[in-house]
Amino acid sequence: MQNSSRLITILRICSFLVLLYSLSMPLPVFVGLLFGEHHLHGFLITFAFAFIAGLLGWQLTGRDEMNLKTRDGFLVAVLFWVIFSAISTMPLYLDSRLGLSLTDAIFEGVSGITTTGASVLDDIDHLPKSILFYRAQLNFLGGLGIIVLAIAVMPFLDIGGAKLYQSEMPGPMKEEKFTPRLTDTARDLWMIYAGLAACGMVAYRLAGMNWFDAVCHSLSTVSLGGFSTHADSLGYYQNPAIELVGGTYSILAALNFSLYFLALHRRSLRPIFHNSEARFFMLIISLVITLVCLELARTQTFALPQAFVHGFFQTASIMTDNGLGAAHYPDWPAHIVILLLGASFFGGCVGSTAGGIKAMRFLLLYRLSSQEIKQLIHPDAVFRTKVGRHSVSDRVIRSVWALFFLYIFFSCAFVWGLMIIGHDFATAFGTVAACINNMGVGYGDTAAGFGPLKEPGKWLMCVAMIFGRLEIFPILIVFSRTFWRF
Amino acid sequence: MQNSSRLITILRICSFLVLLYSLSMPLPVFVGLLFGEHHLHGFLITFAFAFIAGLLGWQLTGRDEMNLKTRDGFLVAVLFWVIFSAISTMPLYLDSRLGLSLTDAIFEGVSGITTTGASVLDDIDHLPKSILFYRAQLNFLGGLGIIVLAIAVMPFLDIGGAKLYQSEMPGPMKEEKFTPRLTDTARDLWMIYAGLAACGMVAYRLAGMNWFDAVCHSLSTVSLGGFSTHADSLGYYQNPAIELVGGTYSILAALNFSLYFLALHRRSLRPIFHNSEARFFMLIISLVITLVCLELARTQTFALPQAFVHGFFQTASIMTDNGLGAAHYPDWPAHIVILLLGASFFGGCVGSTAGGIKAMRFLLLYRLSSQEIKQLIHPDAVFRTKVGRHSVSDRVIRSVWALFFLYIFFSCAFVWGLMIIGHDFATAFGTVAACINNMGVGYGDTAAGFGPLKEPGKWLMCVAMIFGRLEIFPILIVFSRTFWRF
Ligand SMILES: [K+]
Ligand SMILES: [K+]
Repeated sequence: MQNSSRLITILRICSFLVLLYSLSMPLPVFVGLLFGEHHLHGFLITFAFAFIAGLLGWQLTGRDEMNLKTRDGFLVAVLFWVIFSAISTMPLYLDSRLGLSLTDAIFEGVSGITTTGASVLDDIDHLPKSILFYRAQLNFLGGLGIIVLAIAVMPFLDIGGAKLYQSEMPGPMKEEKFTPRLTDTARDLWMIYAGLAACGMVAYRLAGMNWFDAVCHSLSTVSLGGFSTHADSLGYYQNPAIELVGGTYSILAALNFSLYFLALHRRSLRPIFHNSEARFFMLIISLVITLVCLELARTQTFALPQAFVHGFFQTASIMTDNGLGAAHYPDWPAHIVILLLGASFFGGCVGSTAGGIKAMRFLLLYRLSSQEIKQLIHPDAVFRTKVGRHSVSDRVIRSVWALFFLYIFFSCAFVWGLMIIGHDFATAFGTVAACINNMGVGYGDTAAGFGPLKEPGKWLMCVAMIFGRLEIFPILIVFSRTFWRF
Repeated sequence: MQNSSRLITILRICSFLVLLYSLSMPLPVFVGLLFGEHHLHGFLITFAFAFIAGLLGWQLTGRDEMNLKTRDGFLVAVLFWVIFSAISTMPLYLDSRLGLSLTDAIFEGVSGITTTGASVLDDIDHLPKSILFYRAQLNFLGGLGIIVLAIAVMPFLDIGGAKLYQSEMPGPMKEEKFTPRLTDTARDLWMIYAGLAACGMVAYRLAGMNWFDAVCHSLSTVSLGGFSTHADSLGYYQNPAIELVGGTYSILAALNFSLYFLALHRRSLRPIFHNSEARFFMLIISLVITLVCLELARTQTFALPQAFVHGFFQTASIMTDNGLGAAHYPDWPAHIVILLLGASFFGGCVGSTAGGIKAMRFLLLYRLSSQEIKQLIHPDAVFRTKVGRHSVSDRVIRSVWALFFLYIFFSCAFVWGLMIIGHDFATAFGTVAACINNMGVGYGDTAAGFGPLKEPGKWLMCVAMIFGRLEIFPILIVFSRTFWRF
């Protein structure tokens, strides 16, 4: 009965999460009421459904046993994103004003909760405020899911939270000593996340947005989700200050949140500026920004000051996988766009809401490759791989390599999948970069939005978004035979 | 004086190789005379120049000291390909009938000797026979260079041949016990290479080619070079038998040549069919062939029997990085072409003339990735990575991962380089796949030949071809600071 009791416990956790998530549904209703809307039943139905389903599940599963194994965390992680995606879809599908097909509603829901920010909606400027706010909230809660839920909720349910946290964010996270009591950490990270969102909101407001837009864009930037309240995204404002805020804010949101925690704790910026991953991330993003700005100027796409503003904002937005846009960037020279799409595979730091393969892993791959060159020159020397002051174990190295390989492999497979459906190569590459990296801006057919994506392509990209968000392994694990050999 | 004496020894080796190479120049002259040509001075000048330069270098460097270090092999390997490329260029540049610019002549020369087989020449059908034969000979000698020179010439010069052999073909080559006396092995491999070429020649002749074409195509197929005597490549013949021979022959040439050696030695096919890499290669190429044939039939590009013939031949030719073409394959549905171009990164087996990352490495990456999934499920278990009956050392694993990462990284960099020069994304991807994998058939602007490539693009692709042929590391090593810290 061990195994069925484990399944029941997993069900119990999911029920609890659903219950918790249902409580977010009234928020867009309040926003809608504030703006005098009347068609808010979609949110209310979803609220009622999720609340009752969660409560029932929670009650029926009892609470006597909590004997999960570490690996059950993978199943919880996968179920978490799948169930939350399904619930997120409901208000969008139920709102007749949007006129979304089930496929489109699911795509938009998955895109929101995975903080991808790819949208199938057109005429975004004229959507009801409740829907606009709800989309931003999806991004925000999805980001929260990535950073906090795994460490805040899981320990409360008495699971090996630290372990699950590692599975959610595999990679060398332990550079700085950082294991105080988990609930405290979770609360602090939550505060940082919310604080960063509040700062961003004020900054956007000061730069020229109205309050509603500032709130929505702030929620979607801190989570690097990238849903906007305008079809032209930040390009709508034609305002360099807003782009500078958006770019800076994207970069800040792409740093490891535990660095802010340490910085606050020690009242010093040293933890941020002395962190190898953060430094590497800053170095690479500066290089790409410089390259993009120079190329924008060289190709005379923009005059110099604009080239700098647009180049800085768009690179920061795409490379961190935020995905806000401006200045009609898909019309820029193709080599710049492809460079940006390629850079989206880099992403941000581990422990942020950024997508992609992430800076820490590239830093490690770079170190290992240079080490290999030295090793071939000095075949008998013994090298140790270090990141920061700590040497990296073979275990972590193997894990990072394998992720890199699988990431490339599945990206190629998804590109090919979109091509077999009938999209051209550039569209397929851009769309897969947008989805697997949870970046959200496409190219070619999907440059102006993901509506033109063919129906099976939308389903495939839902899979890609969840693959990317979970960093591939949890899904392969849940579908492996070894996993079910309890 | 240690170091300067090492440099002198390296110079001596290179001189010897140049001397040896010069002896191949009279061959196309004979072919030209046979077909009544008169403009053969290009070959004769090259012969005289290379012979004298080689002899002088050989004489002037003396022979007292031979104290090379293992790592000098990298420099020899790089110099070998660069010097041979330069010499190969001469007859093409000197022949006024071709009217090639220096850039074009260099591209054609590098392409030939690296067994890439990408051509800037148009109107290939009407080229002088001496030139057509010379191009096939370039492929053949380039292939010989890859397989044999490193083990046949180096021991004669008293260098650590085995070590260099490893550097030329990094990767787990030691699955089967295979270290008899090197000169014997080299001679045997040479016999196998020549024997395979002879069989291929007869097969092509029987399938319907004339003797001249059969000789040229045989030389360029056994080396997986892919230069043809016709602009339409094998498509010229409109003959299924020739395509079936070409496909089968490509696959046979992409197997590890030491397996043939073992098979001959033991008078049994077991070494081939029991070799893990060969089995994996057969499995993957069968899968891709099936996929391509099915897609050709589904998209009604061809009726069933033609779909099979063309699908089999073109997949075998591109995936093994041979690069002979037929049936106007660049006009096939884009997703099939992109699949083939992607498959060219797979290549053939280690120890063949195939390009790409090679089957053994993908087998290892696949094993390591599945192992990682099991490891995450059972965090405390200890897994050993096995290929065949032998477990693979961490050293080899690190080396393979690093090559994979660098291969992807430089492929992306080359694609971006071609785009900045002004080529579109599909052309850039196809051209880089053609060059870095030494495959030789492009896409988009380069589908019909590499003439339309812009001048800096041609230079960049020369670099890509040499990068691919040397499997990246030797070049990075020679340009690293560590290497020159003698
Ligand atoms: K995003
Ligand atoms: K080739």
